[in-house]
Amino acid sequence: MSDRTIAVIGGTGKLGAAIARRLAKAGRKVIIGSRSAESAARTAAELGFGLTGLANADAAMAGSIVIVTVPFAAQQLTLAEIAPHVAGKVVVDTTVPLVPPKVMRVQLPPEGSAAQRAQKLLGPGVRVVSAFHNVAAHKLATDQHIDCDVLVFGDDKGARAEVVELVAQTGLRGIHGGALTNSAAAEAMTSVLIFINKTYQVDGAGVVITGQLVTPDE
Amino acid sequence: MSDRTIAVIGGTGKLGAAIARRLAKAGRKVIIGSRSAESAARTAAELGFGLTGLANADAAMAGSIVIVTVPFAAQQLTLAEIAPHVAGKVVVDTTVPLVPPKVMRVQLPPEGSAAQRAQKLLGPGVRVVSAFHNVAAHKLATDQHIDCDVLVFGDDKGARAEVVELVAQTGLRGIHGGALTNSAAAEAMTSVLIFINKTYQVDGAGVVITGQLVTPDE
Repeated sequence: MSDRTIAVIGGTGKLGAAIARRLAKAGRKVIIGSRSAESAARTAAELGFGLTGLANADAAMAGSIVIVTVPFAAQQLTLAEIAPHVAGKVVVDTTVPLVPPKVMRVQLPPEGSAAQRAQKLLGPGVRVVSAFHNVAAHKLATDQHIDCDVLVFGDDKGARAEVVELVAQTGLRGIHGGALTNSAAAEAMTSVLIFINKTYQVDGAGVVITGQLVTPDE
Repeated sequence: MSDRTIAVIGGTGKLGAAIARRLAKAGRKVIIGSRSAESAARTAAELGFGLTGLANADAAMAGSIVIVTVPFAAQQLTLAEIAPHVAGKVVVDTTVPLVPPKVMRVQLPPEGSAAQRAQKLLGPGVRVVSAFHNVAAHKLATDQHIDCDVLVFGDDKGARAEVVELVAQTGLRGIHGGALTNSAAAEAMTSVLIFINKTYQVDGAGVVITGQLVTPDE
């Protein structure tokens, strides 16, 4: 499983570049996708660790696991761009439905969550999983330990387990959070964390699940 | 401020009794409300610490701060019952929109959150704040330290600050989580925690906000 190629769509952005870098550093083969193949290649070269860059559609085609890291406003167009190339694949949507300028205010989309919106846009043949909603990108971009868990949501249990494992390779703890519809919890929490960052002058507040977690048998 | 009487509506339930007990133990004057004045009085006597019991409407009338701790299915009727007695008061809604049997599935109400639903039901003259969504009631019922923060939401900043202080008196850390609409995050998280409890065999998973929080000047 771990030799499967990962494509990071929108991988020149802060979150995408950070995830791509951590996974590549952990030994995974990672392709950065961007609207422009040139800027994808440039970011890949800058990050190192054997990363390569392609246009989004080509990256999605080459990847077995496709991670989408674009702003909410770009989610629909980006998913339309990669849709022809991800049938049957695991697509990890990281979209948080932030609606500027009120990013400290929870504003979930009519579908219930950005993750359910992704599933609707890609269709039932794609195994959509959501993750990485609450991690501060500027921390993920470094090698520092991050005090934040990554809740992983998805209706396909196997795909979800694969992403939980993927999260571990970024140095964070991935935790099964349940069905895709539950993604609303982590997506909404991001606005709360932004509010907390401002109110309590925090440099990237995170969320940790407490309690003795016993990893389930697969 | 701290000598204001607190009414805990639905205070014979697990969460309500636990909150009432902790606040009374901390020296607050607390009245337990229940549909039946008799069972309210009985629970109050059992819990000790000077607690007294009344019928919900009478408790709401006597309280300056009114904490509502009833199941989602009982929220509407209970709020209708206390509505005539809470004009201008701080009402702390703890409702989590769990819809049995699928309690591990996020199912936010059409209003966006149970807290917004409470505000709608009580009208704009009531200062609705929401809190205590993620704490395991069976832990709160003891004197043990609980590894879980309490996110506090509300559109009235003063009322929210009062509840943050109230949470501290229960031995937990209350954190400003922003506008009432942000309550969706904590409410949805409860279904995720129930899922985690089952999946990872946890006895009451909690949520902790990480980062150096600097308490804002009031």
